[in-house]
Amino acid sequence: MSKYDIIVLGSGPGGYVTAIRASQLGFKTAVVEKESLGGVCLNWGCIPTKALLKSAQVFEYLKHAEDYGLSAKDVDKDFSKVVERSRGVADGMSKGVQFLMKKNKIDVINGFGKLKPGKKVEVDGKEFSADHIIIATGARSRELPSLPQDGKKVIGYREAMTLAKQPKKMIVVGSGAIGVEFSNFYNSMGTEVTIVEYLPNLVPLEDEEVSKQFERIFKKSGIKVMTNSEVLSVDTSGKGVKATVKTKKGEEVLEADVVLSAVGIQTNIEGIGLEDVGIVQDRGKIMVNDWYQTNIPGYYAIGDVTPGPALAHVASAEGITCVEKIAGMHVEAIDYGNIPGCTYTSPEIASVGLTEKQAKEQGYELKVGKFPFSASGKASAAGTKDGFVKVIFDAKYGEWLGCHMIGAGVTDMIAEAVVARKLETTGHEVLKAIHPHPTMSEAVMEAVADAYDEVIHL
Amino acid sequence: MSKYDIIVLGSGPGGYVTAIRASQLGFKTAVVEKESLGGVCLNWGCIPTKALLKSAQVFEYLKHAEDYGLSAKDVDKDFSKVVERSRGVADGMSKGVQFLMKKNKIDVINGFGKLKPGKKVEVDGKEFSADHIIIATGARSRELPSLPQDGKKVIGYREAMTLAKQPKKMIVVGSGAIGVEFSNFYNSMGTEVTIVEYLPNLVPLEDEEVSKQFERIFKKSGIKVMTNSEVLSVDTSGKGVKATVKTKKGEEVLEADVVLSAVGIQTNIEGIGLEDVGIVQDRGKIMVNDWYQTNIPGYYAIGDVTPGPALAHVASAEGITCVEKIAGMHVEAIDYGNIPGCTYTSPEIASVGLTEKQAKEQGYELKVGKFPFSASGKASAAGTKDGFVKVIFDAKYGEWLGCHMIGAGVTDMIAEAVVARKLETTGHEVLKAIHPHPTMSEAVMEAVADAYDEVIHL
Repeated sequence: MSKYDIIVLGSGPGGYVTAIRASQLGFKTAVVEKESLGGVCLNWGCIPTKALLKSAQVFEYLKHAEDYGLSAKDVDKDFSKVVERSRGVADGMSKGVQFLMKKNKIDVINGFGKLKPGKKVEVDGKEFSADHIIIATGARSRELPSLPQDGKKVIGYREAMTLAKQPKKMIVVGSGAIGVEFSNFYNSMGTEVTIVEYLPNLVPLEDEEVSKQFERIFKKSGIKVMTNSEVLSVDTSGKGVKATVKTKKGEEVLEADVVLSAVGIQTNIEGIGLEDVGIVQDRGKIMVNDWYQTNIPGYYAIGDVTPGPALAHVASAEGITCVEKIAGMHVEAIDYGNIPGCTYTSPEIASVGLTEKQAKEQGYELKVGKFPFSASGKASAAGTKDGFVKVIFDAKYGEWLGCHMIGAGVTDMIAEAVVARKLETTGHEVLKAIHPHPTMSEAVMEAVADAYDEVIHL
Repeated sequence: MSKYDIIVLGSGPGGYVTAIRASQLGFKTAVVEKESLGGVCLNWGCIPTKALLKSAQVFEYLKHAEDYGLSAKDVDKDFSKVVERSRGVADGMSKGVQFLMKKNKIDVINGFGKLKPGKKVEVDGKEFSADHIIIATGARSRELPSLPQDGKKVIGYREAMTLAKQPKKMIVVGSGAIGVEFSNFYNSMGTEVTIVEYLPNLVPLEDEEVSKQFERIFKKSGIKVMTNSEVLSVDTSGKGVKATVKTKKGEEVLEADVVLSAVGIQTNIEGIGLEDVGIVQDRGKIMVNDWYQTNIPGYYAIGDVTPGPALAHVASAEGITCVEKIAGMHVEAIDYGNIPGCTYTSPEIASVGLTEKQAKEQGYELKVGKFPFSASGKASAAGTKDGFVKVIFDAKYGEWLGCHMIGAGVTDMIAEAVVARKLETTGHEVLKAIHPHPTMSEAVMEAVADAYDEVIHL
């Protein structure tokens, strides 16, 4: 029986990053993976969708070449080549993780790992033991009883990024990041897209102003938006699929070639031996403390299988925190109030901290500032005037409570707010940090200025 | 004679921003402008060049549509339409400043302003007085004796952005931001470009690794690069222009349709009455203290006419500082060690703080980290794998001495470093600020991790 210091179950952005950090810290490490290295994020999530969206973005440029003084004829896309490019990017990244495993001398154990009592893991009949076992098995597309996925007419994100043929009509159920990203992609490719959201706003976790602006732009791009609506049932018996949708005005039957279910995720915790070991779960999540220890010593859990936002960067950070703590380093617990969230549609959305509504509900008195990209010189030059930056400060102590962005490139701009909040900034310091001109990032400085009635370009 | 609290001479990004902030602070304010509101930056600099470069960027996408699974035929540009778009953007921004002047109740005095003793300004024979006069007359293209500009065959940036006809061959002298941005634009449009730089590296103010990477990419894009080279003379007597260039290997004669001189700027301080008032200058710059006061009470100077980096964002910040001090606010002096610089070529360059060489020369022991975008998932998905983020820390106290970036979108990413440095961060805090995945901004976190031997994806 092979013995390790640390065995990580699952090689997604939680698992493989944990394994690398563990190896850096001198632990003999193995990672167990039943499928492709890199997990959903690299193979079926973050990365391949960004590749698809890049093709969509370039396609938009091609379609609007004249806006830039350019011209092109017979502008077209080859759907299968677009998908192929995306798969190529995913495969390249997965190979990259393979290289990192080797370089860091991490053993990759292929197969389905099952936890055993006594700090053991069984993989396809073979047993491995470790001083520390870290569960990072992640999650998959959640299935609603009213929307059973058959992988053909009712699909999840995996199928959505590898369809052999582009659908003419698509219904997307759910408007979180996955739902709106695919809506954006397929709409841009020429598919007729209807998005159905149960709540009153698209991207319902975002600040309401962001949601509303997003909805306006989405509608303008040709996507049919149904909010306050629910898919009651789907009928896949005919040629296509018929979805019965309950709206505020009554029931409506939509027809499409395919329905994409994007109503969240469910954790991969079945059959991995949690019960055998006696690890406590609650509502489908593994319970852990600040250092990702479960109730059973030697067993840890990180990433989507634990409570908290199911995001790749959170999983990575949790894994690093977990093994640094095991190594006896002086570790700070993760501040879950400072986790950025990004949506890579056109326009992009990025946010961190409290929404205005949340901040009010928590009893803060607020200084709120907003700067639209329509007033930004860089945005004018780049033709990216949609969107804004909104900032929320505590009026009393100046704490930066939240930052919400919608527009071109904001997923790369939110890091400024994350780092500044980490460093316990006040608005004054952001305002007096000289942002380069002309950039989209000036909008952050201007939004802060707006909160304090010092905005220049409004 | 009209009397103001504050008169600002010049309405560039120094002048108009100063005027707006002055007005916000309750001062009765006027701005004097001889040409278009917004100055060089809005009309002939930052903004219209970004519009040109956007067309170039989109043109590249059109030319490489197949890389994204797309196709287009007869891809072409209409040079005059590209220029027209750029002019439209500039005009729009200038009108925006007009609106801001009105909204802030700032009087715009059209004409050439001349300072008079006794805190007066004369504009076309009319006199105006003020308690405070702020000189913000900016700068223009510098002329070398060996390279006299005739505006036709030997031109400056103004002509370069409004040429009636696209040149077939162009020589660009100087490889600062202006030189390389135009090289990038014209090369992309199909002009044969040769860039001549006196110093050993392109963009010679950047960190040497950035310069070298930039040069590799520039050459690969088809631009002919001549470093360690100097234009000795130009002969415009024939049909085109012949430039005699001294290289390390000897003299060479280059032929072209046009030579763009981009060898820096010279200040607009002639004829504005500095001598009449007795304001001290030194080597073409107006001498000021931390609060932009000249030697003569009541007269101030900000922006390009003063020593320090000739950048729009510096001018704006100086103007704001100047009037806030006049208003009696508690003001911090600008930290000139934390001014970001940006170059909007493809790839972009952005940097702040010390280069590695400068840091070593100042006697620091260093922790240097570097993360290439070739190892970034987002860059792979977006097809923007060129470039890297390089960070430089003081090994002893952890101070973030410098950050140097080359790659797609880095001009928007540098704000993170500026703000974090403003907040006196250490590497640890940047490393533990959770950057969203997948973004280009993760490369900052990873570069910091690399400096401390904790990098994950290398």
